[in-house]
Amino acid sequence: MNAIKDSVHDYVTLGPVAQDLLDTHAVQRLRHVKQLSTVRLVYPSANHTRFEHSLGVYHLACRALDHMDIAGDRAEHVRAAALLHDIGHGPYGHQTEEVIMRHTGTHHDEIGDLLHATETGTVLEAHGLDPDRVARIVRGEGELGQLVSGELDVDRMDYLVRDAHHTGVPYGTIDHGRLVRELRYRDGTLVLEEGNVQTAESLLLARALMNATVYRHHVSRIAGAMLKRAAERLLASESAETDIQQFRRMADHDLLVALREYVPDLGARIERRDLYKRAVWAGLDSVPPAVVDLGHEDARQAEREIADAAGLQSHEVIVDAPTRPGIKESNTRVVVGGEVVRLDSASELVSALRAGERAQWRLGVYCPAEATGAVHEAACDLLELPGERVRPTG
Amino acid sequence: MNAIKDSVHDYVTLGPVAQDLLDTHAVQRLRHVKQLSTVRLVYPSANHTRFEHSLGVYHLACRALDHMDIAGDRAEHVRAAALLHDIGHGPYGHQTEEVIMRHTGTHHDEIGDLLHATETGTVLEAHGLDPDRVARIVRGEGELGQLVSGELDVDRMDYLVRDAHHTGVPYGTIDHGRLVRELRYRDGTLVLEEGNVQTAESLLLARALMNATVYRHHVSRIAGAMLKRAAERLLASESAETDIQQFRRMADHDLLVALREYVPDLGARIERRDLYKRAVWAGLDSVPPAVVDLGHEDARQAEREIADAAGLQSHEVIVDAPTRPGIKESNTRVVVGGEVVRLDSASELVSALRAGERAQWRLGVYCPAEATGAVHEAACDLLELPGERVRPTG
Amino acid sequence: MNAIKDSVHDYVTLGPVAQDLLDTHAVQRLRHVKQLSTVRLVYPSANHTRFEHSLGVYHLACRALDHMDIAGDRAEHVRAAALLHDIGHGPYGHQTEEVIMRHTGTHHDEIGDLLHATETGTVLEAHGLDPDRVARIVRGEGELGQLVSGELDVDRMDYLVRDAHHTGVPYGTIDHGRLVRELRYRDGTLVLEEGNVQTAESLLLARALMNATVYRHHVSRIAGAMLKRAAERLLASESAETDIQQFRRMADHDLLVALREYVPDLGARIERRDLYKRAVWAGLDSVPPAVVDLGHEDARQAEREIADAAGLQSHEVIVDAPTRPGIKESNTRVVVGGEVVRLDSASELVSALRAGERAQWRLGVYCPAEATGAVHEAACDLLELPGERVRPTG
Amino acid sequence: MNAIKDSVHDYVTLGPVAQDLLDTHAVQRLRHVKQLSTVRLVYPSANHTRFEHSLGVYHLACRALDHMDIAGDRAEHVRAAALLHDIGHGPYGHQTEEVIMRHTGTHHDEIGDLLHATETGTVLEAHGLDPDRVARIVRGEGELGQLVSGELDVDRMDYLVRDAHHTGVPYGTIDHGRLVRELRYRDGTLVLEEGNVQTAESLLLARALMNATVYRHHVSRIAGAMLKRAAERLLASESAETDIQQFRRMADHDLLVALREYVPDLGARIERRDLYKRAVWAGLDSVPPAVVDLGHEDARQAEREIADAAGLQSHEVIVDAPTRPGIKESNTRVVVGGEVVRLDSASELVSALRAGERAQWRLGVYCPAEATGAVHEAACDLLELPGERVRPTG
Repeated sequence: MNAIKDSVHDYVTLGPVAQDLLDTHAVQRLRHVKQLSTVRLVYPSANHTRFEHSLGVYHLACRALDHMDIAGDRAEHVRAAALLHDIGHGPYGHQTEEVIMRHTGTHHDEIGDLLHATETGTVLEAHGLDPDRVARIVRGEGELGQLVSGELDVDRMDYLVRDAHHTGVPYGTIDHGRLVRELRYRDGTLVLEEGNVQTAESLLLARALMNATVYRHHVSRIAGAMLKRAAERLLASESAETDIQQFRRMADHDLLVALREYVPDLGARIERRDLYKRAVWAGLDSVPPAVVDLGHEDARQAEREIADAAGLQSHEVIVDAPTRPGIKESNTRVVVGGEVVRLDSASELVSALRAGERAQWRLGVYCPAEATGAVHEAACDLLELPGERVRPTG
Repeated sequence: MNAIKDSVHDYVTLGPVAQDLLDTHAVQRLRHVKQLSTVRLVYPSANHTRFEHSLGVYHLACRALDHMDIAGDRAEHVRAAALLHDIGHGPYGHQTEEVIMRHTGTHHDEIGDLLHATETGTVLEAHGLDPDRVARIVRGEGELGQLVSGELDVDRMDYLVRDAHHTGVPYGTIDHGRLVRELRYRDGTLVLEEGNVQTAESLLLARALMNATVYRHHVSRIAGAMLKRAAERLLASESAETDIQQFRRMADHDLLVALREYVPDLGARIERRDLYKRAVWAGLDSVPPAVVDLGHEDARQAEREIADAAGLQSHEVIVDAPTRPGIKESNTRVVVGGEVVRLDSASELVSALRAGERAQWRLGVYCPAEATGAVHEAACDLLELPGERVRPTG
Repeated sequence: MNAIKDSVHDYVTLGPVAQDLLDTHAVQRLRHVKQLSTVRLVYPSANHTRFEHSLGVYHLACRALDHMDIAGDRAEHVRAAALLHDIGHGPYGHQTEEVIMRHTGTHHDEIGDLLHATETGTVLEAHGLDPDRVARIVRGEGELGQLVSGELDVDRMDYLVRDAHHTGVPYGTIDHGRLVRELRYRDGTLVLEEGNVQTAESLLLARALMNATVYRHHVSRIAGAMLKRAAERLLASESAETDIQQFRRMADHDLLVALREYVPDLGARIERRDLYKRAVWAGLDSVPPAVVDLGHEDARQAEREIADAAGLQSHEVIVDAPTRPGIKESNTRVVVGGEVVRLDSASELVSALRAGERAQWRLGVYCPAEATGAVHEAACDLLELPGERVRPTG
Repeated sequence: MNAIKDSVHDYVTLGPVAQDLLDTHAVQRLRHVKQLSTVRLVYPSANHTRFEHSLGVYHLACRALDHMDIAGDRAEHVRAAALLHDIGHGPYGHQTEEVIMRHTGTHHDEIGDLLHATETGTVLEAHGLDPDRVARIVRGEGELGQLVSGELDVDRMDYLVRDAHHTGVPYGTIDHGRLVRELRYRDGTLVLEEGNVQTAESLLLARALMNATVYRHHVSRIAGAMLKRAAERLLASESAETDIQQFRRMADHDLLVALREYVPDLGARIERRDLYKRAVWAGLDSVPPAVVDLGHEDARQAEREIADAAGLQSHEVIVDAPTRPGIKESNTRVVVGGEVVRLDSASELVSALRAGERAQWRLGVYCPAEATGAVHEAACDLLELPGERVRPTG
């Protein structure tokens, strides 16, 4: 048994499979992919990586399995899945997810191809594990998949606490010690044991507050949107010759260096934190439904038209329309009075959080600081937005 | 300037007034009054006192005043009020509040009489401060009173974080650093500056989760109810000769020792944590309105009747009906889009929390473990409760 | 399995024996004995009790046993000893140890009589455990005794971290996670595995810094010395009728209340933190050897003579001469290059710490603030101390 | 006033100068230079950067200046120096310091040229500050220089606590709150006020334990040595055309990408954590003085000869001989009995720590894992080392 010191969980004890997986290129690469990508531009301490997060998820998976008395082959597959659950992430994690999805049709939790005839797959097989079964757990399939990717998964238990530790924002400090103790399987469904309505609520609340304060901070969103556009231009660049499979396997710094060379305007801005500013910041009730649901191509088209109207180059305007809000965790199951029930039937908070998500949704239009006036005008005109109400404040 | 090391805020720097107030008997007495009274029977690390809490409230008041550029005489009165805000608490704090109120008509935040012709009042006057003005601030009156006792007061900012630190339950770890930085006066009302809807929500959420998990844990409620009954019997005891004014100035250990002598059955049980158990645990929708709003005398009468029916002595049954739920903080004011608005108009969570408070309300009937069956029967019969639904679980 | 939330170790999981032991009066009493007795008068947050410390020691013992693969009967006895190791402490722990020792010849770690024909002993036997064997482990005897009371015991690992958490002084934050992982038995001796010279040093350093800053802070020493004198007077008081066995089983508050009644001058001073001041504060090189080694009776005699010379009542002067310094932990064993060696042969720090202990030793003479001048004169005269050099500063 | 959330100091409030300096390229670059370079290969959470560290040093400088009542122009220069003190670091900080020194004669704390006719210098001048004066403070010159670079500087106060927070190793958690409160100038010398011998000791002890456990962990040393050799080869490479001034301004990722391209063998190994292993690990008493003091060129020559004898390519052997040990902090000044004295005259620990430093010094010879046997032989032969005693264990 080998142990690694972690700033959140103290010592993480590694079993033989984990030790071997840790040495693979796929896992070592996660040392170079930050957990919170552009959030560090707002919270400068948030430089933690998906490598340490993966160790943390592995650790919590081990503890949850122990508390539920799940051992042997099933546990071994879950532990491997916990350690590997993020190897499918591209550079800058969620920020490039959409780009990769559009080019390959592959979501970051589909890691089947990364376990086929690869170093990682070979390690799994050498320990008698089935790579496909591991991949299915990472996708959240089956009974055990819920533990790694579901409403009550150890992934989020780790990232909330870890992100709080590293940003300094306390809202994510949930009681993970209690959560892993209170997980149970009831008829194949992962639930929280009797007496844990608040435990379940705390998980949703922590995420809602971290969303508003950290994950969706407007400065991080601007930097993220710049990164996405830059990544698209890199992939489209003939001189860069960057293939999407190669792109997907990049580390953060590879992308940063490639952007600096092939998309120098945005690349240098991101590196130096010389970011675009908001020309528009509009809530759901100020935005026509067609604009809320603007597809990728239409958004690019709108950017070009706004830029044109404002006298800018087309890539100097970014329209950033997040998908409509939703809360997956409302499906969380808890035991109340001996019965398994959905959290939203046991807690008034779920629907309030859902409403809160809607209230916090924002359409953003970004551009260089000196052009925000002109772009505001042009965007309001083109997207039919009510001028004053969508002017950013603060 | 003198500094005291605190486990929560590191160093608390004391000004001259605070240094002198600290030496008074009224403040030193708070060393012997625990912040969370009977909660320590559930969370054994929760032994912190109202003394250190008062230092913490003083510290946060200083920081908030600094950030708002309030200095001089007004600041001096607020700081004194912060340090003295809890000297009106009786032994075991909130647990004896009701008893004292019934006998004296005085709430714990009415400290005017404790500052008149007393050592503490003399110290205030020696520093040119007005005891009455300090007492008014402690009562939450006036513009400055909101900072010490209001929806956004530094009292709760300190106790949430401190209770989290000492119980080990993380839900109370709010961002007090941000709260004291974002407070502002707008037309005499204390508000949170633009961009702090979530900051305000986090305060309510922290309290709601701490309520459910810590402050209203059923074991602490049982011990608290036993303590209240015991205190009433002590005050009624002829041999004890305990006067209510003398009672009010007791420290925790004085009460414990007095109970051991004059109310030995309950006194010994509390000291040894040999607590009553729940015979009934009933939600709002299972309890007839008349029982929810049962007055003090009627509750005592019900206890006697239930005890009688169950073959127990009258003081062996406790009916514990908390007041109807409400959330004071819904009056919190935040700045949104340049306007001061009530938090419940800016946040869906407030009404959900209000609903949550209702859902968590419980009527409890407690008695010695061996009699819970008989008492359950008798109480359901007498209070017209639906038997199975009000049987405690877990 | 039952789990208790602890502010230091998060959840402490209790086995069946521990659950039953926890309910005994002997263990519940520890809720009312503070871990750091009079230190709270300097560090107001330090209100933690020997109850939560005992849970912490139990927790670390469980983890150390797990890491060393010690299970079954032997482990069960160690775990019970860990939980019970402090039940022999009198009120205010170490502060009354000497008094009790003088009257009964019993040290706090001799708990054999507390396990004979007692509730606690019966619980042990009901679980098939041998009370005598448990008592021997608490005394530090045998191979397993080293784990509970020795140079590398889990007792000190818990108290250093816990005292740091509750005082706010960081020096005690050792790496207990590593310590419990690196313990091994080599030929019956408890040692730290290869590569842990610094781990062992850190334990000594943490204690040395906590000694100087916390445990032996002069204000705590003064209050402690006042408490000892008061306890002696209580035991000598005819009206109090306090028997030493009864005294030994008191909780902190029992002693405080008894002192207030029977030794009112010191009792009230301790309760209100109206402490004596230092008239003399003298290092080893300023104190004649005969005074350093002054016995109990001679010290009392000196107090009477100093008081007489200074015009005070005899109990208004306290001569406080700690035993000569020594560092027990120099016997710590570590593995270096495959061999078990004493730490002082592997680390230069041990002898430096020993020298540091000597340098920090102080003789104190205390009295009411207004009499420090006269007492200084009288004490220097009588104890042959070099006047200016032993005048307290700062 | 602007505030940035920091995971260690909570909020860091920025004055106008700091806000403008923060936007410069020189400071933003520090976001991409890790504080602990290769230590993250041992402690995976240690990904914090010199950017957040610089904010922390600025914060502690502000607090120390406040406590010492130093304001105005002098304070402004110190604060600027605190924020800029690390801009002279090359990629991977200390790991490339020697290389840069050899090529340019410039130490990382000589930042004069980076403030001349640069963006950063212009910002300073725009605020009426003298760049040369700032540079002198960074070099530790003058009275104020001691606060930024001296025995009691705020630089080390920040990095010890920050490195502890991010590695999870607790030894660095010093009491920085006390340190900044107890600093004083006495006749132009920065000292710790009366009563702080242990405070001063704690700083040295924290560093000694962090040295042994973190900063000089052998895995980090191996990776660091590989990085140095790789950097030298990069600078020597004709195809890379990397100029030393350009090299010095690289960020970590720039170097990583350049190495991958131009020094692919070492570059790929560092990125994938496929590190060399120790063939020799020798204490001071096992190494001939001439080898301890081996110059740069001689060390390279020795590497070539050992490689040759072991049948390896010359760059596959690394001889890593740190400079002879010394403890700068022994010059720390403290006030004892009203006099300013050197810490080593007030504390036995200083000489013990010096001895400890000597005892922990190690010569390392590293090579690919499969060649350690042959390299051990060859190195012992060539460097005249006692074979068995210098074989690495554990």
